[in-house]
Amino acid sequence: MSHLHKNIANETGDFTAKLKPVAPDGAVVIENERKRSIINVKQLSEHLLTSQYLERQRRVLDILRQEKIFSKATQANLSRPDRYKLGLARGKRMRQLQDLHGWNDDDFLMAEYLVDDIQPYHLHISLFTAAVREQANDEQRASWMPKIAAWEIIGAYAQTELGHGSNVRGIETEARWDQSSKEFVLHSPTITASKWWNGTLGRTANYAVVIAQLMLPEDGTYKSYGPHPFIVQIRDMKTHRPPDSIVVGDIGPKYGYAAMDNAYCLFNQHRIPFSAMLSRFSSIDPETGIYTKPKSPSSVYGQLTRGRSVIVMHARLILARAVTVAVRYLSVRRQFRDQDDPTQPLETPVLDYTTVQIRILPLLATTFALHYAGSHMKQLYERTRKNDTTLDTVDHAALSELHVTSAGLKSLATTLAADSIETCRRSMGGHGFGGGTGLVQLNADYLSKPTVEGDNWMITQQVARYLIKKVKECIQSPESHAFSETEEHVKAYLSARLQKPRIDILRSDQAIVHAFNWRMAHLAYKAYDARELQKKSWNSLLIELHKLSTAYSQAMLVSNFYTAVVRQQGSLPFDTLTKSVLVDLFRLFVFNIMNSEAREFQNSGAVSSEDLDEIPNKVLELMASIRPHAVRLVDAWSIPDYLLDSALGRYDGRVYEDLFHRAHVVNPLNKLTFNPRYKEDEIVLGSGDAQHILAKL
Amino acid sequence: MSHLHKNIANETGDFTAKLKPVAPDGAVVIENERKRSIINVKQLSEHLLTSQYLERQRRVLDILRQEKIFSKATQANLSRPDRYKLGLARGKRMRQLQDLHGWNDDDFLMAEYLVDDIQPYHLHISLFTAAVREQANDEQRASWMPKIAAWEIIGAYAQTELGHGSNVRGIETEARWDQSSKEFVLHSPTITASKWWNGTLGRTANYAVVIAQLMLPEDGTYKSYGPHPFIVQIRDMKTHRPPDSIVVGDIGPKYGYAAMDNAYCLFNQHRIPFSAMLSRFSSIDPETGIYTKPKSPSSVYGQLTRGRSVIVMHARLILARAVTVAVRYLSVRRQFRDQDDPTQPLETPVLDYTTVQIRILPLLATTFALHYAGSHMKQLYERTRKNDTTLDTVDHAALSELHVTSAGLKSLATTLAADSIETCRRSMGGHGFGGGTGLVQLNADYLSKPTVEGDNWMITQQVARYLIKKVKECIQSPESHAFSETEEHVKAYLSARLQKPRIDILRSDQAIVHAFNWRMAHLAYKAYDARELQKKSWNSLLIELHKLSTAYSQAMLVSNFYTAVVRQQGSLPFDTLTKSVLVDLFRLFVFNIMNSEAREFQNSGAVSSEDLDEIPNKVLELMASIRPHAVRLVDAWSIPDYLLDSALGRYDGRVYEDLFHRAHVVNPLNKLTFNPRYKEDEIVLGSGDAQHILAKL
Repeated sequence: MSHLHKNIANETGDFTAKLKPVAPDGAVVIENERKRSIINVKQLSEHLLTSQYLERQRRVLDILRQEKIFSKATQANLSRPDRYKLGLARGKRMRQLQDLHGWNDDDFLMAEYLVDDIQPYHLHISLFTAAVREQANDEQRASWMPKIAAWEIIGAYAQTELGHGSNVRGIETEARWDQSSKEFVLHSPTITASKWWNGTLGRTANYAVVIAQLMLPEDGTYKSYGPHPFIVQIRDMKTHRPPDSIVVGDIGPKYGYAAMDNAYCLFNQHRIPFSAMLSRFSSIDPETGIYTKPKSPSSVYGQLTRGRSVIVMHARLILARAVTVAVRYLSVRRQFRDQDDPTQPLETPVLDYTTVQIRILPLLATTFALHYAGSHMKQLYERTRKNDTTLDTVDHAALSELHVTSAGLKSLATTLAADSIETCRRSMGGHGFGGGTGLVQLNADYLSKPTVEGDNWMITQQVARYLIKKVKECIQSPESHAFSETEEHVKAYLSARLQKPRIDILRSDQAIVHAFNWRMAHLAYKAYDARELQKKSWNSLLIELHKLSTAYSQAMLVSNFYTAVVRQQGSLPFDTLTKSVLVDLFRLFVFNIMNSEAREFQNSGAVSSEDLDEIPNKVLELMASIRPHAVRLVDAWSIPDYLLDSALGRYDGRVYEDLFHRAHVVNPLNKLTFNPRYKEDEIVLGSGDAQHILAKL
Repeated sequence: MSHLHKNIANETGDFTAKLKPVAPDGAVVIENERKRSIINVKQLSEHLLTSQYLERQRRVLDILRQEKIFSKATQANLSRPDRYKLGLARGKRMRQLQDLHGWNDDDFLMAEYLVDDIQPYHLHISLFTAAVREQANDEQRASWMPKIAAWEIIGAYAQTELGHGSNVRGIETEARWDQSSKEFVLHSPTITASKWWNGTLGRTANYAVVIAQLMLPEDGTYKSYGPHPFIVQIRDMKTHRPPDSIVVGDIGPKYGYAAMDNAYCLFNQHRIPFSAMLSRFSSIDPETGIYTKPKSPSSVYGQLTRGRSVIVMHARLILARAVTVAVRYLSVRRQFRDQDDPTQPLETPVLDYTTVQIRILPLLATTFALHYAGSHMKQLYERTRKNDTTLDTVDHAALSELHVTSAGLKSLATTLAADSIETCRRSMGGHGFGGGTGLVQLNADYLSKPTVEGDNWMITQQVARYLIKKVKECIQSPESHAFSETEEHVKAYLSARLQKPRIDILRSDQAIVHAFNWRMAHLAYKAYDARELQKKSWNSLLIELHKLSTAYSQAMLVSNFYTAVVRQQGSLPFDTLTKSVLVDLFRLFVFNIMNSEAREFQNSGAVSSEDLDEIPNKVLELMASIRPHAVRLVDAWSIPDYLLDSALGRYDGRVYEDLFHRAHVVNPLNKLTFNPRYKEDEIVLGSGDAQHILAKL
């Protein structure tokens, strides 16, 4: 028997062992839910995830389930130091399993995803490896990459500082070139210069790529040539301690990522050799100290787009997880009888209430919207990487545009996913606050995403700047050919905006896409007008620019969703019913946005107020159509119970048995008996000990 | 020296001890912020909190700071079982301090508020005490209350069950009357009948008030007389263990409230004496087994209103805490130079960005809005309690109305506060995800509030139901006198709705209040029309009814805010500038809502689209006016550094010194050195131990 087999038998021997939940129990209810729909879950699952992905998920999961170290049952009870130790042990074991089973990178990533607890080695295998590979010259690569691949050294990536995040040019750490010794002197002039947040560096790494201002002597002083990367040994290979000229440690508990050792790190006139500067793009001549400027980096066309498609595809799975838990639990949970028909024998399943549906079902639709947009980005990127000769000018224009505008999609997708975890949690009432949701750690960890890799409010500026430029170009050259779809939409808007065409959103899915593009172009034109003609300050426009980026990204989601489930419906391998459910999800997704942003659509001039007033009823109808398929739709996302780690979201619906098992069998606090008498300082009854807990403060 | 003196000196002896933050450091910046405004903080603080409250806060704080057990420095590192132990130790000490210093209830509550870590005794002093006091008959009171007050017994309140929350009538636990032995038999027929969530009961309490279906024999079977309260001994007074007929324990880790032992508890044919039934309102005759129906309970007129005023007043302080942290940190933090003026010597303070202001400054305004609404409720309640003879019909009508509609305010206030913690956190970028925010535990704990004491989406139904009834009455009796303000608004709307009067929101504060009341009446009328005339199902209307409740509650906030800072401005003890800042806060609060809900105001027919289009500019202007006063305004909420427990939100602005201190001096993880070599299973370097962490799983 595997260690992680989800045994919820009650073997306590007390009277509770014989009790069952009140009928109908969750297992019966969830089975009935699955009988209400004929959606082919396997087919839809392969459509969303590919059979290759599903095979990998099963194969890696089977291996992980054999190992007690990957059990999640009690980890929420551990202290922060123990969470780090557990993470380190898990990271070691994962790498051992990689050696043992010959896992490739995708297998290893799958294992990390399933274990779902960031491991202290994570920055070694991600940013550190990438930084050396991309920024080292050939000789440096040859020297470092084998050691990195074999985990002979463990590295981190040290860029951000206590006082400096998004603005990399503002970092304070200095690397001064000493011509006489042919060394660099790394130095942290202030507390705010301390490296900060750098994962893996706090307790784990012995090396790091450190970003520092390259300072070269000039006229008796030092001049900065901007931030450059240096590979630096941080700790002794035997004692694992830093030299006196380096202070390094873990920054302490955070919102999430308990297992990760995010670092602070300072240097005091710390000397590193000439060879430490990673010199693929710029370099120093060790003999003369003369600096060679960065060559323009080899084409990274598409790289950023790929990274952002990964974020979007990840966001859809996070969202799918939260929605899976909510849909399953809210189907099982019943509360109150129907007010208009109090003779019903059973209380109403909570998912039947429209106030619950409106919070959950649009999020279910959003998992599909993110999926089709992320897939589209990924496919475009993969075609360029393979030098696909069928790529035409339009594809290249699209990719070049995505390079800029994917910032907006990163912002929107991670905000949606982060907010949705909490929306799902709150929809589940009391048990939503319990540890059985499987969402406690997910939420704490994922809340970093709206900030990292570009703050979600900051990076939307580049989308807006790009769109303002496009409007300007289209106005200046009205006759020019539109290469990208965005240009087409802007041109269409500019030529028709005074007529204010009425777009018939209620009768045509194509019209819906049109309305989203029209609204985007309208906001882009308004932003152009405010900035370029009225010359308003950038800061005074930021709020509107953020909205513009959101409108643009929503139009991207809508357009990709439409293409996949309406325009190219013929190519979908599904039966008619499944296809119509997908179209309902598309419509629910779009109408729900239109409803929230109704006035923007109305003010754009193309959607009538009467049509907008109809939307709430449309939304109710669509939710009623989708409701019977909800459980099968979340099943299609194929989130394994091991990953969910959720009593409420279990595949088999045995919600109450699992909640009770976690409390009565698993919870370690119940192994202790306490002394409640306040005049006695003793805590654990009979221990006589009043000092134990005080000593931990 | 007190244990809790916030010493952030770096006494490590390494080179970091001499380092300072880059200039200008936070202390200088925050001092300059305070110099920008002449708001009299002390005066405003006493206005908001009263000098009595501020004196209590200082006095209790001085006592707590002497005791190491109340230090918060490392508690985020502790395991869940240790968090419970710490809670128990703190609870004992707090009660000892109460004895020592003669604290009254308000002093004790202040101590709990400042320590800010729920203690396992909490349900004893709150719901358990209240339940016995209110539901016991005189004899029972006389017997139990002295023991409860002296903490000779520790009690809990066991109502909700694993399968049953808001719908109390659905609980499964049974209390069968056994006439032969004159006992009740408590029994849990299923797993879902398990008592669940009951605070203090998991490990601490030895007694509980248990709510069970009273079952009386009738025609050879048992008939339920509905849920009734029974006082039940749960654990032995010496061994602190339950009898075999009771299974009880802690449910395990949750989102928040780590120190609280929320319980599961089941009974197996557990016998309790006749005297266990709390019999103030209904009773059994022990000789005949005849049931006496509840007398209508003695007037609790206003009690609910008082409870909800407490929730609103608490929500304002939670919000004030989050906003205090955000405003102070975002003033100190700088990022990027101004795009339109890149020659600025320093980067821009983050709080100067409009995209940051729009997230924070309306929340600052909301603290005041909640304050004036909560104060109003509290005053009304206190006047009735004192049998204030100046209370007139209008006051009574208002109070009777508040009794219903305060549900909406509970919903709105706790949703606002809960959402705002995360909004503030995210606005702070990278450090917002760190442990130095002081918001990690606050968020985890407070997220229970939108669910407990009435789920925020569910309880708004009663507000809507009330308003539909009011519309119906006003239509049926158009000539009747309007007793409450709500009736006035509804009548005004009904008589003028066909004319659609234009309300000039941009030029009159009174008009703004009018617009909010008009919109509320408009939505109430629509709901009346849908339910009473079109006979739509209740479930199909729930989403709109929730919006109606929100609109009603927003109108309450707006109206109370207006009364306090505009209409009764003459009675405010402030200088002209402070008064005008308060009016700006009022306007920012209202325009920010109008902007989010613009289409509702437009569709209500009384606010022009042109006026609504002007609002974004108004909001920008108001934020610019308020910005220089932001630090002093949050200072006025007087949240002590000990309560904030925030490096980012420190009063003195020494953000970076404190973050570094928490990492380099306090963090216990840095006391250990680890073995990063993956082929070796050892975790702590030199320990040779690979099993330690595995054994904890």
